[in-house]
Amino acid sequence: MSDGGFTYREAGVDREAADAVKRRLGKLVESTRTEGVRAAFGSFGGRFALDGEELVASADGVGTKIRVAFRSGRHDTVGRDLVNHCVDDILTEGAEPLFFLDYFACGRLEPEVPVAVVEGVARGCRENGCALLGGETAEMPDSYPEGEYDLAGFIVGRVAFPEVGRREVREGDVLLGLASSGLHTNGYSFARALLFGRLGLEADDPWPGLGEPVGEVLLRVHRSYLAALRGPCSRGQVRALAHITGGGIPGNLERVLPPGLDAAVDTDAWEPPAEFRSLRELGRVGREEMYRTFNMGLGMIAVVRPSEADAVADALREAGCPAVRCGGLVEGSGRVRLGP
Amino acid sequence: MSDGGFTYREAGVDREAADAVKRRLGKLVESTRTEGVRAAFGSFGGRFALDGEELVASADGVGTKIRVAFRSGRHDTVGRDLVNHCVDDILTEGAEPLFFLDYFACGRLEPEVPVAVVEGVARGCRENGCALLGGETAEMPDSYPEGEYDLAGFIVGRVAFPEVGRREVREGDVLLGLASSGLHTNGYSFARALLFGRLGLEADDPWPGLGEPVGEVLLRVHRSYLAALRGPCSRGQVRALAHITGGGIPGNLERVLPPGLDAAVDTDAWEPPAEFRSLRELGRVGREEMYRTFNMGLGMIAVVRPSEADAVADALREAGCPAVRCGGLVEGSGRVRLGP
Repeated sequence: MSDGGFTYREAGVDREAADAVKRRLGKLVESTRTEGVRAAFGSFGGRFALDGEELVASADGVGTKIRVAFRSGRHDTVGRDLVNHCVDDILTEGAEPLFFLDYFACGRLEPEVPVAVVEGVARGCRENGCALLGGETAEMPDSYPEGEYDLAGFIVGRVAFPEVGRREVREGDVLLGLASSGLHTNGYSFARALLFGRLGLEADDPWPGLGEPVGEVLLRVHRSYLAALRGPCSRGQVRALAHITGGGIPGNLERVLPPGLDAAVDTDAWEPPAEFRSLRELGRVGREEMYRTFNMGLGMIAVVRPSEADAVADALREAGCPAVRCGGLVEGSGRVRLGP
Repeated sequence: MSDGGFTYREAGVDREAADAVKRRLGKLVESTRTEGVRAAFGSFGGRFALDGEELVASADGVGTKIRVAFRSGRHDTVGRDLVNHCVDDILTEGAEPLFFLDYFACGRLEPEVPVAVVEGVARGCRENGCALLGGETAEMPDSYPEGEYDLAGFIVGRVAFPEVGRREVREGDVLLGLASSGLHTNGYSFARALLFGRLGLEADDPWPGLGEPVGEVLLRVHRSYLAALRGPCSRGQVRALAHITGGGIPGNLERVLPPGLDAAVDTDAWEPPAEFRSLRELGRVGREEMYRTFNMGLGMIAVVRPSEADAVADALREAGCPAVRCGGLVEGSGRVRLGP
């Protein structure tokens, strides 16, 4: 922090070490492959063939967003975050959700807290037409401090939009960026260290320059794109989807690129919402770091044929999900280029 | 602890409060029911119908057994515990495992630790013919102390032994108790508070009266009963299975009883292994409390017809899993009676 700039590593997450571990874990996953496995480690969701169906499964947590819930004393939103995050993950494999299970582990806490958390989970499930099939609640007072908890979720869906999972994208395809509702579930180590740590704000304090309380902005629920994308996906108009989570646009969009194409993202095509501009200014963060850490206002990017881009964007807008043309696919080497 | 006796509640787990919360959570689960749901909350695994298949899913953690791994510095066993626990859970619904996902959340730790944990998970998956389809690894240094982590697992299987899940049990059916390998994954709050807390032992110290190091006894891997039970189950000889986890024999066996039958368990039919006898003596614990907290040497109880009991017991023994006749079903009201 020599010049006052704030990097992700200082906020407590060493991404390179994490990537190295992930590579080793990938080999272990491979050692368990059975005949049903279609795709596992590295995709947004593991794929498993069963009697002509293809199932897609994904596990996730809400990361340190959960600590904003502790600070705010508001526990009924993180469950919706978790379900929507999982729904969006398997949607990128072309799957509609079937069922969900949660794991809730906690220190001593008021019974109202787990009930509020699961109220959020159940609401998220209902909103996505997904059954909450069960879960585990573990009180572990030696592992979690009083009043704290962690929450993980597991989703299983079936492939309903096979084109989306096949990712047959071409040069000239258009990128449509779908509006996020806020930070979703990424960049919270950074945002918390900056807002609560360095600036000493509390959850109820107004976000400098925004007016809205810090806790409310940070707890805005991760958006599910299922309802808005169901129409375009069922009409076969969506060629690939990238869920913009940890790693940001570059880290996630590159996962849907074939080796011979780059994604040219025009960052002038949309203005990042106020919270992202504020985080950048308050933290004096470099542009690259911002785009690697946060979704910057686009929670999902759809790849569509140029001839269908307007129709898909219109359908998304009609479904209440603003979408912006934010670039396209060009000859390249499987990389994401950010620039106007 | 007025008379030196040691109760589960003192060890940090308030079971009645937990049960009250679980009832409220059950209603939330019910609110998310979709047409595929066959059974959800309260069973060992949620059931979901899909295209003529019936899927069974379960989520679990390893509870505070994980803290024995921290104390012992041995991290490659808890993953096997987790997988085997999940496999045994869905086996009671008549399901063979298809795939597994894990959630690993940690504070700062050496990269060797998550790799060792997932080595255990992967080994457990291979041993059960189950694909490790993916997972989530989250470094959350503000939520987990340095060197600590939590681990949750999620399994999906398909019903392969429908009779087991139907639980058509009758008066006169015989209970076969299958040997556990140790505490499996239950009673660890109690055992840790007693051994590490009150007695001040370390993981390397010999267990008083047993000789084996405390850490080794406590880390013995939760047994998977899939391989041993596959034969009898596939021959339709197993009418119901109770996985003896939290709540012990009474808490789990009653889950497979119809309203008009009791299970009469003859606790003289087997001698609890040395670690259970020692925990009872060292902790001056009542008999009822012991049987509600620990598996007491039986990790799974199978309900079989009297005419098939010997054949099933022989098959289990040949598969390397000692089994004992430990009672039977009698007229009653859905309760478990412990007694000679």
